[in-house]
Amino acid sequence: MSTPAADGFFMPPEWAPHTRCWMAWPCRKDLWGAGLDAACDAYAEVADAISQFEPVTMIARGDEVASVSMRTTAKVATLPLGHDDSWIRDNGPSFLVDRQGSLAAVDWVFNSWGEKYKPYDLDAAVAEVLLDRIKVRRYAAPLVLEGGAFHVDGEGTLIATEQCLLNPNRNPGKSREEIEQVLRDYLGIEKVIWLARGLVDDETDGHVDNLVTFVKPGVVLALSSGDADDANHPILQDALARLRAATDARGRSLEVIEVEQPKARYDEKGGRLALSYVNLYIANGGVVMPVFEDPQDQKAMDIVGKAFAGRKVVGVPALDIVAGGGGIHCITQQQPSGKAE
Amino acid sequence: MSTPAADGFFMPPEWAPHTRCWMAWPCRKDLWGAGLDAACDAYAEVADAISQFEPVTMIARGDEVASVSMRTTAKVATLPLGHDDSWIRDNGPSFLVDRQGSLAAVDWVFNSWGEKYKPYDLDAAVAEVLLDRIKVRRYAAPLVLEGGAFHVDGEGTLIATEQCLLNPNRNPGKSREEIEQVLRDYLGIEKVIWLARGLVDDETDGHVDNLVTFVKPGVVLALSSGDADDANHPILQDALARLRAATDARGRSLEVIEVEQPKARYDEKGGRLALSYVNLYIANGGVVMPVFEDPQDQKAMDIVGKAFAGRKVVGVPALDIVAGGGGIHCITQQQPSGKAE
Repeated sequence: MSTPAADGFFMPPEWAPHTRCWMAWPCRKDLWGAGLDAACDAYAEVADAISQFEPVTMIARGDEVASVSMRTTAKVATLPLGHDDSWIRDNGPSFLVDRQGSLAAVDWVFNSWGEKYKPYDLDAAVAEVLLDRIKVRRYAAPLVLEGGAFHVDGEGTLIATEQCLLNPNRNPGKSREEIEQVLRDYLGIEKVIWLARGLVDDETDGHVDNLVTFVKPGVVLALSSGDADDANHPILQDALARLRAATDARGRSLEVIEVEQPKARYDEKGGRLALSYVNLYIANGGVVMPVFEDPQDQKAMDIVGKAFAGRKVVGVPALDIVAGGGGIHCITQQQPSGKAE
Repeated sequence: MSTPAADGFFMPPEWAPHTRCWMAWPCRKDLWGAGLDAACDAYAEVADAISQFEPVTMIARGDEVASVSMRTTAKVATLPLGHDDSWIRDNGPSFLVDRQGSLAAVDWVFNSWGEKYKPYDLDAAVAEVLLDRIKVRRYAAPLVLEGGAFHVDGEGTLIATEQCLLNPNRNPGKSREEIEQVLRDYLGIEKVIWLARGLVDDETDGHVDNLVTFVKPGVVLALSSGDADDANHPILQDALARLRAATDARGRSLEVIEVEQPKARYDEKGGRLALSYVNLYIANGGVVMPVFEDPQDQKAMDIVGKAFAGRKVVGVPALDIVAGGGGIHCITQQQPSGKAE
């Protein structure tokens, strides 16, 4: 059994050119409850926003294909494919390229964020079925991992949290060193920057894509909190300190651009919603970012616009998405330019 | 001054996905003489053949734009741009990519194959003007070199001939080591495989693209001669022996696939025409190769088709192109997929 890195493959950064963006239509009724319809509207708005930059293909259950077509513009394509839930960042393939311009992908083991939602057998199969449809070489990785649990810069650096990757609900038998080795072998990275943990009440057990995103090699955009009494404050302070102390795979210190989190919001059960401006999607020539009917929204968009100079920044209201547990990065998956088999 | 390699750029192999193919319309009357019209027909046929695989943009003098449009299909685009001659492999940019999916290009010093045809000031400026038009980052290399004088495998290996690169009519002050260093710095390669010389009477002073082409990493397609009395026989035998003895940048021995040259043909002055089946263009999903009204044509196409399995092979009659001194590889230049500035 070969590995992607041994075969010359690596994961390009999210800003490398894309062939398309994959999404999956909301459908898990026990997750969304009465919010399902509003979630569909919000997903459709995200799909339409991204489709101004690159093709979008929405996977949907057979009986939902017509609904997707009616609720999105004609630019959004639909692929009928069985699935359980709608967070394709996490259960979809992580696409790779090599120096020959060939495409491949990693299929991680998916266990529904530590067995939180069931059933998940269809979601666990989505990456394999999808790769078979588009004839892209698949590497099955011996690791429980979600795409939202890491970010790469395309130059050898990966950022993740200990809370998620070392969580006993994911890979209880594996050491930190063993996990790092799988990441090196399957994503072509050289160095892991470890943050401690994610936002409070984030049911992903601390996905890094709510804390920070790479803007380009050497530069990150990180969530911050100016309120010392906020429950996320010590978490974000620690993350910022670790990012500032880190050096990347090329030996560079990171430039850290801060963006203040929106004000706290809670769900019906009193749980803190995981609201993060950095849970955004980098499209060809654009950035699609979540906004939250918050006074900070415009300032956050300005910071993102300045960080991603030259890209058009589009804010999409995301409270109806966050109600399900994630942001815009969580519901999207880029397929970089490259040739299939 | 930075170099492409220091900035993470490398030249991808010709089989990496292309955004387009560049060509330049025949126009130098003292070169083509009465053959100019037939050359235009042949170039148009090459452009049309390639355009079934990928977009083709033909640069043309302002007063030739209408002629290009009328003589090619609607799929071939035209860019008005001053130029002297029509061998864009040699005076065009050598495109590079990096792991971020960004595009850049090398602009070599062009001196008309050792001052052979004049004027050449417009041709020497074509790469810079073209890169400015499409907003691609340009690296001016301190070396007289033509794109047809080398081949790369995208994995660190370059093949060239001593006759051309070490020729006193190109870079008289530079040693072999200095030239290798420029190639490493500007193409991101690690190892040069040196062949001795090119075909007899090849006025490029031995361009390697008439001798051999990479099929994929570790595999080359090389011209051969079964006739011990043919003037090219010792040259091709030596090239084959050097290829078989070589190891590439990854330490592999090369698999060498032979293709017998067509029968000898001569121009009006008795000069041997440089006829080579390996002077071909690798397009997205296809190969466009020259054929010469020769009994070997079909066998050569079969060998090329088997070597490039999975690609559609199209043969285009090329005697009217070779009359001007080159083949199909010489008149094409791939722009790999990647984003401009």
